[in-house]
Amino acid sequence: MDNRITSLFGIERPIIQGGMVWCSGWRLASAVSNAGGLGLLGAGSMHPETLREHIRKTKAATSKPFGVNLPLMYPQVDEVMQLLVDEGVKIVFTSAGSPKKWTGWLHERGITVVHVVSSSLFAQKAEAAGVDAVVAEGFEAGGHNGREETTTLCLIPAVRRATSLPLIAAGGIATGAAILAVQALGAEGVQIGTRFALTAESSASEAFKDYCLNLEEGDTRLLLKKLAPTRLVKGKFLDEVAKAEDAGASADDLRALLGKGRAKLGIFEGNLEEGELEIGQIASLLKGKGIQTVADVMEEMAAEYAERLAALR
Amino acid sequence: MDNRITSLFGIERPIIQGGMVWCSGWRLASAVSNAGGLGLLGAGSMHPETLREHIRKTKAATSKPFGVNLPLMYPQVDEVMQLLVDEGVKIVFTSAGSPKKWTGWLHERGITVVHVVSSSLFAQKAEAAGVDAVVAEGFEAGGHNGREETTTLCLIPAVRRATSLPLIAAGGIATGAAILAVQALGAEGVQIGTRFALTAESSASEAFKDYCLNLEEGDTRLLLKKLAPTRLVKGKFLDEVAKAEDAGASADDLRALLGKGRAKLGIFEGNLEEGELEIGQIASLLKGKGIQTVADVMEEMAAEYAERLAALR
Repeated sequence: MDNRITSLFGIERPIIQGGMVWCSGWRLASAVSNAGGLGLLGAGSMHPETLREHIRKTKAATSKPFGVNLPLMYPQVDEVMQLLVDEGVKIVFTSAGSPKKWTGWLHERGITVVHVVSSSLFAQKAEAAGVDAVVAEGFEAGGHNGREETTTLCLIPAVRRATSLPLIAAGGIATGAAILAVQALGAEGVQIGTRFALTAESSASEAFKDYCLNLEEGDTRLLLKKLAPTRLVKGKFLDEVAKAEDAGASADDLRALLGKGRAKLGIFEGNLEEGELEIGQIASLLKGKGIQTVADVMEEMAAEYAERLAALR
Repeated sequence: MDNRITSLFGIERPIIQGGMVWCSGWRLASAVSNAGGLGLLGAGSMHPETLREHIRKTKAATSKPFGVNLPLMYPQVDEVMQLLVDEGVKIVFTSAGSPKKWTGWLHERGITVVHVVSSSLFAQKAEAAGVDAVVAEGFEAGGHNGREETTTLCLIPAVRRATSLPLIAAGGIATGAAILAVQALGAEGVQIGTRFALTAESSASEAFKDYCLNLEEGDTRLLLKKLAPTRLVKGKFLDEVAKAEDAGASADDLRALLGKGRAKLGIFEGNLEEGELEIGQIASLLKGKGIQTVADVMEEMAAEYAERLAALR
């Protein structure tokens, strides 16, 4: 399939792997790129020197295009932007902040810029800032999430109408059927988080992967809305947050409850009891699949996509 | 398009109009049936004798199949079930309760039974109860909503896998593109609420229709979760509920705040200030369309569906 997304990145399939904290290291990114998609390193959970190492290892592991996702609230964002240029990164996905400040700067240095949005309004602002494409991510997505709770089914046609940018859909997409569905809504590519977070190449802990591959519907919830809305997975931490919120906890209360380093503890170190666990709502659809390789996931999605498309004809 | 849904109901297009409180009277139901879909009367907001009148008027206005949606928590449910039989209704959609008690009883009287669910588990229970089809309705939908907050994009493939029943998707569907999208996910038909609630034939007040046809993204929210999760529209009542909930309001507090008759006041009488306003998240996509007739909506959806399907090829 060739379209504006495959052309923009120079890839074979318009499938982008989300740059997720504690999951998206060089192994995952290079595996996705080698399979014809676009792998992204998740800078959000890396110290600058760790990121540099992952960029170099990705380059050694693939000759295909790859990128870096950088949340714009990253503490040393200036330092990391320069690092991306120095290390020859050609594609940057920005999120969690305004694309105004950095898009031009990156463009001047020959870097393709994509911004992640949760509404048409933010998509229009990204277009005004000059980005090359947007990822529109719905309420279903794991981890940090938009305030308006617009689902992928409602968001994609709205963003499609609001901008002329190449459009990548995210949130709730883990199968070939879903890729076809969002394409019907006007998306030209997809960004897939959950499914890749639970592959063999993801740097998440085995315990986290196993836990998330055995969830039922309703086992994730969007909470922490007074801080930053975050989709959490059932467990002790979610229960504590839900109880506090039901009782009217303030943003400060929630900040104290969250503390520091909980996502690392849960996702990377596999402490399911004390850690913060983040995954998309679509995880329950993967129940019983077990931990697959990226190559298997890509093949399975391509085969299902072709089968569903044929059925629609 | 012919499939299990069109065969089950004897209709031309697998498009069902949701049986919505204060919107779905005989004018709306007969218009949808006359346009080749399946119109439903919304019994939830009708006294038994009002329902009888609407059934008779629908029969006078169309020779095509139509049905009635009956929430199983309806106070005089026994009386209304008998009324449906006496008036010769052939299709009943049940919701908000267990399908176990009534499905067999309706079948013995030659009536087709469809149950509305918000999860795979409830779909399996409906299948075990012997229903003829299920409507799976996602988080995007207006009004009363499931507790698990599963979106249509995540729900449809899960229900498709969990049961072999004919499957009708609902929540977030207002265009031909969305019909195609949920079909790609495995749905065989759609139930459309919001778009029909805002047509000329809907019995909602003009003020309500105009208000809902001018919403922005993010203008609806799922609240009242400690009572029954309900998607509300921005305004004074939503603000009051949100404020109470942020402060930790109990179910009793919310019940007192809600009071009686607020949905009628808002939707039917058009008191946007004091009423409870309910509409789906997809309403903002309709901004600027103005109040259309059912026939226009059906034509527009069919044309867009054909166009998007051709583009996918």
